[in-house]
Amino acid sequence: MKLYIGNKNYSSWSMRSGVLLAAFGIPFEEVKLRFDFTPGSEWSRAISAITPTKRVPVLVEDDGFTVWDTLAITEYIADRHPELPIWPADTQARARARSLCAEMHAGFTRLRNVCPMNIEAFFPDVGARLWAEDEALRADVTRLGAAWCDALKHSGGPFLFGSFSAADAYFAPVAVRLSRFGLPLSETAAAYRDTVLAHPAVEDWIADSLREQDFIVEDEPYRSARA
Amino acid sequence: MKLYIGNKNYSSWSMRSGVLLAAFGIPFEEVKLRFDFTPGSEWSRAISAITPTKRVPVLVEDDGFTVWDTLAITEYIADRHPELPIWPADTQARARARSLCAEMHAGFTRLRNVCPMNIEAFFPDVGARLWAEDEALRADVTRLGAAWCDALKHSGGPFLFGSFSAADAYFAPVAVRLSRFGLPLSETAAAYRDTVLAHPAVEDWIADSLREQDFIVEDEPYRSARA
Ligand SMILES: N[C@@H](CCC(=O)N[C@@H](CS)C(=O)NCC(=O)O)C(=O)O
Ligand SMILES: N[C@@H](CCC(=O)N[C@@H](CS)C(=O)NCC(=O)O)C(=O)O
Repeated sequence: MKLYIGNKNYSSWSMRSGVLLAAFGIPFEEVKLRFDFTPGSEWSRAISAITPTKRVPVLVEDDGFTVWDTLAITEYIADRHPELPIWPADTQARARARSLCAEMHAGFTRLRNVCPMNIEAFFPDVGARLWAEDEALRADVTRLGAAWCDALKHSGGPFLFGSFSAADAYFAPVAVRLSRFGLPLSETAAAYRDTVLAHPAVEDWIADSLREQDFIVEDEPYRSARA
Repeated sequence: MKLYIGNKNYSSWSMRSGVLLAAFGIPFEEVKLRFDFTPGSEWSRAISAITPTKRVPVLVEDDGFTVWDTLAITEYIADRHPELPIWPADTQARARARSLCAEMHAGFTRLRNVCPMNIEAFFPDVGARLWAEDEALRADVTRLGAAWCDALKHSGGPFLFGSFSAADAYFAPVAVRLSRFGLPLSETAAAYRDTVLAHPAVEDWIADSLREQDFIVEDEPYRSARA
């Protein structure tokens, strides 16, 4: 089984699937397609050949069978591995976990737009300015904190539904953004953010991303070069 | 079990969950919250009381347990009704169905933005103009046609995965948009669009929406009043 991903430093959606597979010890071959948004690029050629949506991540089985989109990849992995607690065991907890992932999948658009993932870069000044000026960003972060605290109150933590699940993999790139932009969180939400960042699968992803030393201009609204 | 929905004429996300439950004969009480986007409105009060995301649809169990977001509602219903073929039985077909639904959930944004659902209104002139001018819209419709034809080729039809499944419920509002704006489709894709529109659960939803006779200005980029 292959997982096609983008740059580890930038690709928040790739991170969700990569961290999920690693956290549950599911063997896979990681294939990195370096982002390059110039027409006719190698990225463009390679991604078009494997997925109709032209986006990463994409999971490809040895027989060529392809699953695209992080949510479908999560469900496929859970389907194939009923022995692993990818989703919470309890029906209601599972439905809440899926509600949170689906909300993330189509929502939090302001946070995603103005605070793109960039693991190696720290932007506390940009974060402070955005926090002061941007009401929609504050609403996204407030909702996120409330959603996390609600799940943690139900489960008792340390992860959203007790032990590490698909929901935590889904919020891993969000934990990165919140930390890199230094956005304010309640004590409980900040502790959860740090718990996610300290998970071995997340730490490994972060370590790999720091070795990339790449600079994709389309993903860099706040820098003109690496520091 | 209650399903909170918005106006049937406009609310494409509500339609997905409403059609799914009706098509599989799952009993539920439908609670309509009329859209009203003025601050402090009854809509705003009612929706805030039942869901943190302030969006419909929302499924609420008798004990108050709440599932929000169409994808999570679909999975919850499938979880609670393993005897119903809500997703295709075959693992690979199921993964393809989920890939399509996830792609729809976060994608096709141009189609969704410029061709909002409005069941009672026909805009062939707007559709023809958009089709000529709007490359992103053409790309969305082309991708949609290709996705449908690919699924139908695998399954043999008449629905995307043979018999009616969650994927068809997910594309029902898209079939409405394509027909109301008269957007061009291949013969196979057009036949599938019409098959979806003729499904009894879709026909019932459409009939109910025509009885609403409402006009929500925020959902009406192309009319200043009902015809
Ligand atoms: N809904 C998709 C989103 C995937 C996505 O947007 N991936 C980005 C990288 S993080 C991408 O491939 N962008 C390339 C492009 O937009 O051309 C998912 O959940 O997998
Ligand atoms: N991702 C959500 C989208 C739900 C959604 O956007 N619903 C619209 C109606 S179709 C809504 O409630 N809009 C109210 C608002 O945005 O204030 C889902 O799949 O359920």
